[in-house]
Amino acid sequence: MCQLLGMNCNTPTDIMFSFEGFRRRGGITDHHADGFGIGFFEGKGVRLFHDDKPSANSPVADLVRAYQIKSENVIAHIRKASQGQTSLANTHPFMREMWGGYWLFAHNGHLVDFFPEQGEFFHPVGTTDSERAFCHILNRLRTRFAARPDDETLFGAIAGLTHEIRKFGLFNFMLSDGISLFAHASTLLHYIVRQAPFGKARLLDDDVMVDFAEVTTPSDRVAVIATLPLTRDETWAQLAVDELVMFREGKIILNDRPRHPVYMSVEEGLETARAAGVAV
Amino acid sequence: MCQLLGMNCNTPTDIMFSFEGFRRRGGITDHHADGFGIGFFEGKGVRLFHDDKPSANSPVADLVRAYQIKSENVIAHIRKASQGQTSLANTHPFMREMWGGYWLFAHNGHLVDFFPEQGEFFHPVGTTDSERAFCHILNRLRTRFAARPDDETLFGAIAGLTHEIRKFGLFNFMLSDGISLFAHASTLLHYIVRQAPFGKARLLDDDVMVDFAEVTTPSDRVAVIATLPLTRDETWAQLAVDELVMFREGKIILNDRPRHPVYMSVEEGLETARAAGVAV
Repeated sequence: MCQLLGMNCNTPTDIMFSFEGFRRRGGITDHHADGFGIGFFEGKGVRLFHDDKPSANSPVADLVRAYQIKSENVIAHIRKASQGQTSLANTHPFMREMWGGYWLFAHNGHLVDFFPEQGEFFHPVGTTDSERAFCHILNRLRTRFAARPDDETLFGAIAGLTHEIRKFGLFNFMLSDGISLFAHASTLLHYIVRQAPFGKARLLDDDVMVDFAEVTTPSDRVAVIATLPLTRDETWAQLAVDELVMFREGKIILNDRPRHPVYMSVEEGLETARAAGVAV
Repeated sequence: MCQLLGMNCNTPTDIMFSFEGFRRRGGITDHHADGFGIGFFEGKGVRLFHDDKPSANSPVADLVRAYQIKSENVIAHIRKASQGQTSLANTHPFMREMWGGYWLFAHNGHLVDFFPEQGEFFHPVGTTDSERAFCHILNRLRTRFAARPDDETLFGAIAGLTHEIRKFGLFNFMLSDGISLFAHASTLLHYIVRQAPFGKARLLDDDVMVDFAEVTTPSDRVAVIATLPLTRDETWAQLAVDELVMFREGKIILNDRPRHPVYMSVEEGLETARAAGVAV
């Protein structure tokens, strides 16, 4: 299994505290060691960093840490290859331009025999099931809408596509156009919304503490989404199996949850991934 | 005027020697100080670094230097803004995916009143004339060809589009799909092909020398293309005004040169840019 990390905020925010714990899972406290990638929206632009070195000792990760990029939408991914050769072209997040804006996508899971028909607008460059799914989603959206539709319509369309693709296997993903961040769980995906009054938190993977009150203003709202909770001293919520949510300005604004939601324990989540042939 | 740097090789090569001189023009030895960007193809993947800080003291440039990325195709750009706000979305090189491969584009010049009709496949994200030209070229290529045509056909199509766009103003550019690198001059563009027997060279902008014989094998062939020559001790060739060339495996394989070629001196080139309202 790979690990996903996302952030969606109502003001440009430094993700470094969360990234620090997350990236240490890429080789030190965990063994997600086939590379990593992180993409930051800055206005309409994107900074995208990919590395095929383990994130815990990657010079790119050091740069990301030193640079303190502030962003309203971030998607990061630590990769343990289950399909496709480890190469730069196969490193998440993937990026495309649609409707005059960039889109980022990262996936954690395994889609079996997922070879959708070739689309008109977007083609995979690498060999992963993940990039095929990303291009398929964008091709179907772009074919249906010549410009970005309103949030409800967009969310409904992505929910429909997610249900179709979900039939092929495990499909935890995050997708963002720099405005909204979509997150879908097949197994494990947790999130927290931090807002005033801000407290303190300590990273689970590291002896690092942050007092969010010192680094925020009272109107800030920051949602952090991750495969597994990153901090102690805070209560993380969990997405149900097959739940899709849309974050905007640091909170969930639309949500498609099964009528009888199921929440996997960490053990169940890891076991489900293992049974599906996904490296964990 | 901005400055362009490109490299096209028959084997993955470290561009750092050239980049070192080039980046020092971004704030120390010259005043191209509105940000920089560099994109490296690695196989089918691309590493893309953008910075809105001057390249001479950019941490991203330090990373690029420390990382010693080896690539067969590189495009870099130091920006002095003439059109469009300085922002990440306006930073070259721009990237899109077409025909299942990534394309990089950087431009130095100024296109006046260039607003081509909106294309089907690619849309600008930022506000520069450069990204509009890039998207226009790709839209026209993608509309005409469903898959990458052979080199001659592709070159002819790009030559035709370049002639059309050239009418709107200064259009020095580099374009690469990771296989070939296209370079077009409106004013100044120089290149050198390094191959055995390799000699030594000293950077013009810095007291740095390299002995290429020590860092190459006899079969290596490396073309470096830059707005202005980067080294002494070597003879750089120049593209004629309105000349388009296609580099592959470190040499020019196709070329579209005016019947009566004109070569601008550096002074003429800078004066022409100034007269066109391009910051120099």
